Amino acid sequence: MGITLEQAEVASQAAKQKAQELGVKMNIAVVDTGANLTSFVRMDGAWLGSVDIAMRKARTARYFDMPTGELGKLSQPGGALFNIEHSNGGLITFPGGIPILNGDEVIGAIGVSGSTVENDHTVAQAGVDALKNQ
Amino acid sequence: MGITLEQAEVASQAAKQKAQELGVKMNIAVVDTGANLTSFVRMDGAWLGSVDIAMRKARTARYFDMPTGELGKLSQPGGALFNIEHSNGGLITFPGGIPILNGDEVIGAIGVSGSTVENDHTVAQAGVDALKNQ
Amino acid sequence: MGITLEQAEVASQAAKQKAQELGVKMNIAVVDTGANLTSFVRMDGAWLGSVDIAMRKARTARYFDMPTGELGKLSQPGGALFNIEHSNGGLITFPGGIPILNGDEVIGAIGVSGSTVENDHTVAQAGVDALKNQ
Amino acid sequence: MGITLEQAEVASQAAKQKAQELGVKMNIAVVDTGANLTSFVRMDGAWLGSVDIAMRKARTARYFDMPTGELGKLSQPGGALFNIEHSNGGLITFPGGIPILNGDEVIGAIGVSGSTVENDHTVAQAGVDALKNQ
Repeated sequence: MGITLEQAEVASQAAKQKAQELGVKMNIAVVDTGANLTSFVRMDGAWLGSVDIAMRKARTARYFDMPTGELGKLSQPGGALFNIEHSNGGLITFPGGIPILNGDEVIGAIGVSGSTVENDHTVAQAGVDALKNQ
Repeated sequence: MGITLEQAEVASQAAKQKAQELGVKMNIAVVDTGANLTSFVRMDGAWLGSVDIAMRKARTARYFDMPTGELGKLSQPGGALFNIEHSNGGLITFPGGIPILNGDEVIGAIGVSGSTVENDHTVAQAGVDALKNQ
Repeated sequence: MGITLEQAEVASQAAKQKAQELGVKMNIAVVDTGANLTSFVRMDGAWLGSVDIAMRKARTARYFDMPTGELGKLSQPGGALFNIEHSNGGLITFPGGIPILNGDEVIGAIGVSGSTVENDHTVAQAGVDALKNQ
Repeated sequence: MGITLEQAEVASQAAKQKAQELGVKMNIAVVDTGANLTSFVRMDGAWLGSVDIAMRKARTARYFDMPTGELGKLSQPGGALFNIEHSNGGLITFPGGIPILNGDEVIGAIGVSGSTVENDHTVAQAGVDALKNQ
């Protein structure tokens, strides 16, 4: 099913470190190729409502193999995918979810929630990059 | 788990009194640090649909440690958190939910629903203030 | 809609007092004629999982105008109402939920959860009795 | 909110190690005092259906402050709590969920799923014990 637990923990750990550098408290979820949860950590004091959002961002990024923020551009009123959030038991389409690739193949996705969407995206990207650099 | 039942009832009672002054009928929910329901009252004749909304407002305020109306400003079309309401089994992001603090620590939240959002917020604030003045 | 908030609070208060006599920590829910939540209290330290169960017991008692334990006798394997718990978004059919009557008319119900089913029922009955004696 | 992420990871790591000793593949979830998810890991190749079960076991153990298997003894046909599983959005009441205590205080719970219920319980207990021995 793509990503291993070891890889998920590398991504998760790198994301946590980036969050600490930024001085923010994050929820960090990683899903595999099948969009099933592989790992999750909530930093002490992170928003409780972001537990669910981090997982949804990770799933959403894998469901459509694109960063959640890209999907969000299309789901606005008048957009091609308006209210796509109603599908799949509830999607989250603002930034913070990013697919994880091995070469050209999607092997999973990471979802981060707990701060501004800019910080969420930055922290998720740090997780993705940690695997690229291996 | 933060707020005690006694504190919840002080907040709830103050909110009810404010509602009576305003001549409105409210549903008033209080949750603890873990976003679990601690107390609830529905004033006679208050909207039935507001039972659920009051509880969701209280949970939402605790989930993100901010007044629900602040979240609602960010969840509009084009906003950073568009359609965040699809998470956590359904959030309510218009005014009427406010975190309850003890010093700097969030110990719970109150959610009020049954009138205009302005009145809902005012009544919730009365509940919060009652605990500050103790 | 039957029971008033004032009546619900009399029942709830009497139930809480009985729980204190028994040395147990309870969740106590009261619903009206329409099975809509009227009041709820969680005693400090009461089981978190009993928040939901107390509400379901109260609703179940009003849905069928009988104590929840009576329904539970009929919902056992081989019984006439086997697995009725699957209806209405999830019923609870063990003791602790009791209808509240005014004369012959059902005006609501009380649901109690947090200890043995015997204690739950005893505490719920104390709530019902408090209204009879008014 | 009770357990810290660091403690959750100690418990989770010890549980994973026990699973490796037993030659089984587990999903391991830890929740805090408020029954909110704190950490989760799925070992490579572990059952996908156990992702959800591990989380429900952890929540159930915290909801009632007892091992899930104890609750399961009471929820059998004819038992005092028959069909309690219908509450709280779905409980899991077979072994594998255990509360985590700090002295006398419940600070969270661990839920494990992926093998026989005996193995699930053994692995969960290893997680609990790792925190006792610190």
